[in-house]
Amino acid sequence: LADVSKIANDDYVGFTFFVGSMAMMAASAFFFLSLNQFDSKWRTSVLVSGLITFIAAVHYFYMRDYWDAVGESPTFFRYVDWVLTVPLMCVEFFLILRAAGAKKSLMWKLIFWSVVMLVTGYFGEAVQPDWSWQWGLLSGIAYFIIVYMIWFGEAKKLAEKAGGNVLAAHKVLCWFVLVGWAIYPVGYILGTPGGLFGYDFGVDASFMDVVYNIGDAVNKIGFGLVVYSLAVKSTAKA
Amino acid sequence: LADVSKIANDDYVGFTFFVGSMAMMAASAFFFLSLNQFDSKWRTSVLVSGLITFIAAVHYFYMRDYWDAVGESPTFFRYVDWVLTVPLMCVEFFLILRAAGAKKSLMWKLIFWSVVMLVTGYFGEAVQPDWSWQWGLLSGIAYFIIVYMIWFGEAKKLAEKAGGNVLAAHKVLCWFVLVGWAIYPVGYILGTPGGLFGYDFGVDASFMDVVYNIGDAVNKIGFGLVVYSLAVKSTAKA
Ligand SMILES: CC1=C(/C=C/C(C)=C/C=C/C(C)=C/C=O)C(C)(C)CCC1
Ligand SMILES: CC1=C(/C=C/C(C)=C/C=C/C(C)=C/C=O)C(C)(C)CCC1
Repeated sequence: LADVSKIANDDYVGFTFFVGSMAMMAASAFFFLSLNQFDSKWRTSVLVSGLITFIAAVHYFYMRDYWDAVGESPTFFRYVDWVLTVPLMCVEFFLILRAAGAKKSLMWKLIFWSVVMLVTGYFGEAVQPDWSWQWGLLSGIAYFIIVYMIWFGEAKKLAEKAGGNVLAAHKVLCWFVLVGWAIYPVGYILGTPGGLFGYDFGVDASFMDVVYNIGDAVNKIGFGLVVYSLAVKSTAKA
Repeated sequence: LADVSKIANDDYVGFTFFVGSMAMMAASAFFFLSLNQFDSKWRTSVLVSGLITFIAAVHYFYMRDYWDAVGESPTFFRYVDWVLTVPLMCVEFFLILRAAGAKKSLMWKLIFWSVVMLVTGYFGEAVQPDWSWQWGLLSGIAYFIIVYMIWFGEAKKLAEKAGGNVLAAHKVLCWFVLVGWAIYPVGYILGTPGGLFGYDFGVDASFMDVVYNIGDAVNKIGFGLVVYSLAVKSTAKA
């Protein structure tokens, strides 16, 4: 018997944790079980999509129980999740551009900046909240560098060189990073007690949890599905 | 040792929760492990069938424990399950009609109405029970739109265009939606305290749980089996 406790009908955070964990789990099964149909060049990309949702699934089961038991927003665990899944998303950018000649160095640069972004963010949110805007600024710069690299820099040039389906998929992923990922810094700003810019937005933490849970599902599963459909198209053509 | 507790011999709700979780689990294994025998066009459909029962399986294990521990009907969790599995069933309609030229827009329309149906239903059942018939009416309209689309609208035309095995399978799935799904609104009406139409049917919640559990198994596994046998027939022919 799992250690369940009673849940209230209007516990929307709990609701989104539950739906999130099931959705991530189902998405992982979907990606993993579809691997066979791709040729090996694309299989790794889809496999990594599955890893991202799989890590999230296991995590969500844990965060869900944490929420149930402690009734508190699990910031700590969100970073545990991000520090693995965000670098893996950087790997995805590299994998789909590899055919166009992407070098490992591109991957390492993206991973490096994503880790900088997350470590500084963690310090601002959890370790030194008195310095939250300074840490947040550093984190934001790293985020900006990633956005620049994929929208205009090296990664963009490779995507153009690849053209066709790869370019189209790259574009969609760029939008994910710009718009989908932006909910996290927005949450950081709204969630800073007293307000990050001297203004308190009066948003409570549990509202942000609902937003994060929905955002995570869109970012991780959506991102994976873009890679999946690129693989489907490229396999069909070949 | 798992954390088990004593169960009464006449705990029929518990019995159906147990049977349900095992049946869903077995069905998922069946769908997943049969994937290899289909060509990739049909593999996705059978994979989605498996996802539906897989989500339900994990859910049932949880609901079973919840029932054991809290002794209460887990309305909350039923909706968590539906909000994922019902849209996936809409995806199935799209997938089997894709060969006949179904557009993504058809899928999104079905998904949209299914989400409307479930969100309004949840509000009526769990959030604002004082307004249950108004919410139930909205939900019913969305349900009706789905039924119309697949029985007479766009989806029906595509099924006719496809003909053969696809048309036959589509017809069976239509009956599932009309008859199989109808147990949920009937349960909603019977379960409304005081009766939805000013008449109390005197049905207790645990009776409805038994009905839901049986209905879920029929709807999810049956639906999946229809898709499965369509895939078998179509693969054999090719
Ligand atoms: C810029 C910025 C941040 C960015 C976080 C991001 C961009 C997280 C992305 C997470 C993803 C994509 C998760 C998986 O789906 C922080 C750390 C909140 C701190 C404030 C500044
Ligand atoms: C019309 C209507 C409803 C319909 C629910 C349905 C149709 C649920 C289907 C669930 C399935 C198919 C589950 C998976 O097997 C509600 C929400 C009870 C509220 C009252 C009105």
